[in-house]
Amino acid sequence: MKIESVDLFYVAMPEIRDVGDGSQDALLVRIQVGEYVGWGECDASPLTSIASFVCPMSHSACKPVRDSVVGQPLDDCADIRRIGDRVRANSLDLLQADHTLSGIDIALWDALGHRLGEPVYRLLGYRQATPKLPYASQLFGDTPQETLHKARLVRALGYRAAKFGWGPFGTGALDADIDHVQAAREGLGPEGVLLIDAGTVWGDDVERAAPRLEVLQQCQVTWLEEPFTSGALDAYRQLARLSGKVRLAGGEGCHNYAMAEHMLNYAGIGYIQIDAGRIGGISVAKRVVDAAHACGVTYVNHTFTSHLALSASLQPYAGSDADLLCEYPVETSPLAQSITRERIMPDQDGMIRLPERPGLGVTPDLAALAPYLVDVEIRVGRQVVYRTPELR
Amino acid sequence: MKIESVDLFYVAMPEIRDVGDGSQDALLVRIQVGEYVGWGECDASPLTSIASFVCPMSHSACKPVRDSVVGQPLDDCADIRRIGDRVRANSLDLLQADHTLSGIDIALWDALGHRLGEPVYRLLGYRQATPKLPYASQLFGDTPQETLHKARLVRALGYRAAKFGWGPFGTGALDADIDHVQAAREGLGPEGVLLIDAGTVWGDDVERAAPRLEVLQQCQVTWLEEPFTSGALDAYRQLARLSGKVRLAGGEGCHNYAMAEHMLNYAGIGYIQIDAGRIGGISVAKRVVDAAHACGVTYVNHTFTSHLALSASLQPYAGSDADLLCEYPVETSPLAQSITRERIMPDQDGMIRLPERPGLGVTPDLAALAPYLVDVEIRVGRQVVYRTPELR
Repeated sequence: MKIESVDLFYVAMPEIRDVGDGSQDALLVRIQVGEYVGWGECDASPLTSIASFVCPMSHSACKPVRDSVVGQPLDDCADIRRIGDRVRANSLDLLQADHTLSGIDIALWDALGHRLGEPVYRLLGYRQATPKLPYASQLFGDTPQETLHKARLVRALGYRAAKFGWGPFGTGALDADIDHVQAAREGLGPEGVLLIDAGTVWGDDVERAAPRLEVLQQCQVTWLEEPFTSGALDAYRQLARLSGKVRLAGGEGCHNYAMAEHMLNYAGIGYIQIDAGRIGGISVAKRVVDAAHACGVTYVNHTFTSHLALSASLQPYAGSDADLLCEYPVETSPLAQSITRERIMPDQDGMIRLPERPGLGVTPDLAALAPYLVDVEIRVGRQVVYRTPELR
Repeated sequence: MKIESVDLFYVAMPEIRDVGDGSQDALLVRIQVGEYVGWGECDASPLTSIASFVCPMSHSACKPVRDSVVGQPLDDCADIRRIGDRVRANSLDLLQADHTLSGIDIALWDALGHRLGEPVYRLLGYRQATPKLPYASQLFGDTPQETLHKARLVRALGYRAAKFGWGPFGTGALDADIDHVQAAREGLGPEGVLLIDAGTVWGDDVERAAPRLEVLQQCQVTWLEEPFTSGALDAYRQLARLSGKVRLAGGEGCHNYAMAEHMLNYAGIGYIQIDAGRIGGISVAKRVVDAAHACGVTYVNHTFTSHLALSASLQPYAGSDADLLCEYPVETSPLAQSITRERIMPDQDGMIRLPERPGLGVTPDLAALAPYLVDVEIRVGRQVVYRTPELR
C-alpha cells in the first residue's frame, strides 16, 4: 500500500505565554495509507516544520521532507526505516527536517499498527508492555513555598516520583536553589523519587553547576537533568565525576541517533531521555534504547505534551523491565489535554500501562481540537505551497 | 546603536536541478543599524529559515529568531556574541535557528565593520589577512573521461589545488571510483594538491569506505572529505586509523560549536571544514579556528556558493598562516555569481586575498539580484507574518 497523503495541522492555545511549557502548541501529522490512518505529533516549532515539509528544493541534499514520504510504500516495519533514511539523505542540509520527520515516523508506526492490528510496541519486537512508574513532571514554583505546595499536591495525588524543573532554578543565587530543592523533598516526603531538571541553564559551565551537587546529594535526588546543553559532552563528563550517587540525565535535545550515541559514549550520564517527537520518531528512539542497554545507561522517555506524544514516547522501551521510570506530564495546557480522546492514566497501583490497542492506542479528538486549529497559508511565487487542511 | 531592522531575501534560479549544487538558491540577510547596513548569507533552506525567523513563539525556549535580534544594541564585538547566545537560548528547541542565525551573525559583523571602518578579520583580532591557496571545488564528472577533462581545465586555469566530490563517487562499484580518482590525478598533474569529497555517501559504514583508501593513497590524495555523516564520530575514527597519509576532512554539517568540538575531539580528522553560513556565523567559526589550533587540526573554510559567503567563511581564519588552503567555488550558478558586485579573484600568484575594505569587503548587487528574488508570503491566522521585502 502507498502513502496517499500526509497532512500537517498546527494547533495552539489562543495565548502563548513566555514560560517553559512546551504544551502550548503542537504540530499534528495525519497519514493516509489505503483505508488506514495514522497520527503523529512533532515536538517542534509548527510553522517552521510546516515550511520544511513544503519548501522548494534547494539542491539534491536539501529537499522538502514531503518528497521523501508521499507515494512511498508502507507494508512493513522496514518501510518505515527506509523512509526515515530517505528523509535524512534527501534533507541532509535541511536542519529542521529531523523534527518534522519525528511526527511523520510516529504516524507511520500508528498507521502500520492499525493495518496489522497490533500495538506499536509489538511491531518493535516486545512481547508485552511492562508497567512504568510515572514521575509527575512539572515546573518549579516561583518561590520555594510554591514548590513545596506543588510537591505536596503531587504526593497527595498518589505519585511516588516527581520532577521539578526550569522556572527560577539555577538562574539566581545558590541559596535560592537550595531552598527549592529542600522544599521539593519536604513536600514529596522521604520515600518519593525526586528528580531535578536544570533545563540547560548553565550552558557548559561546570563551575556554576557543581556547587548545586551538595544539596542534591543531601536530598537524595535520583538525577540532575540537563545541567548543560546537549552537546556539552565534556562538561557533562566532568560534572558526572563529581556527582556521586546523583546521576546525570540528558538527551531530550538530541535530534538524531548520532547525538544520542555521543551522550551515551562521552557524557558519563546515568539516564538518557529521548523525545520520540524530536529525535526522528519511534524508529530512532528504539535504536537508542538498544544502544543504551548495551552500555548500561537507563532509558527514559521525554514527554511534556499530549497523551499521543506520551504513547509514542513509551512504545520504544515499552517491554524493557530495567527501565522503570517514565515521564508523565501533569500540568499541560487545555490544548494538550484535548488532543486525544483516550488518556493514559495511572492504574490503582499508580503505574502506567500502554493501551493494548492497535497502533498508538490513542486517537485525536477532532471536535475538541477544532477551536485550536491555526489557519496558515504559505505562498511561494504564484503557488500556494501550504494551506491548513480541513480537520475532519 | 540599535538594530533597527533585519530583512530576509530568498533568491533562486528559475529552475532548481536535482544535483549537488548548493548555489542554486540563497537566503540573504540585510541588517540596518543606524546609517550602517550589513549583509549576510545563510547556506540553508530559504523558506524554512524564513519561517524560523517569523514563527509564533511556542514556549520560552522556542521563540522566533527575530525576537532575539531586532532592537538589540550593536556597538562592539561582544554585542554580536551576546546576540548569538540570546538566539541559542531563546530558540533552543527551534532546530532551524542555527542556520538562520548564521546569516544574521555574518551581517552583524559586516555592519560593525562598516561602522568601525575595519575589515571583519581585524575585528576578530588578526593584524593582517595572509594569502590562501585556493582549491577549485567542483563536482565529479558523470564519467571518468569527464572528470579528466574537468581536472585538465582547472589546471589550465592556473589552480594548484582541486577538489572533486559528489556526483557518482562512492555510489557504485569500486572500479568506477578508482577510475575517477586516477582521472582526477592525471588531469591535475603530479604536483597539484588533490582532494576528494565523498559527500557522506557511506553514512557510517566503514566497510564500504575502507576499500577506497588504496587508490587515494596511490594517487597522493591530501584528504578524503566526508566519508560519513557529521555525527558518525566512531566511523570517522576507525577509518582515520586506516587512512595513512591520506587525512580525513569533515565538519561542514556542523551547525553549532559543540558539533565541531566533537569532530575535533573524537573523529581523528586532520582537517576541519566549517561553513560560516551554517555553523552560526563568523563568531562560532572563529571559536572553532581557535579550538582546532589547540589540538593540531588544520582549519579550512567550506564554501560552495557566492563571494559574499566566501568572504564570510575566510574571515575567521584569515590571519592564520598555518591554515593555507581555502575552498574556492568555481562552478556556481549564475545567481551565485550575481550576488556581489566585487569578486575575490586569485592574484597573479594564484593566491586568494581578502579585500582590505570595511566589513566583508563585498556588497550585494541589488540590480543583478532582482530577477532572482522569490516572492513569498506567510500568513498565520489573519496576520501576514512575512512578505518578501523590497530589494533596494
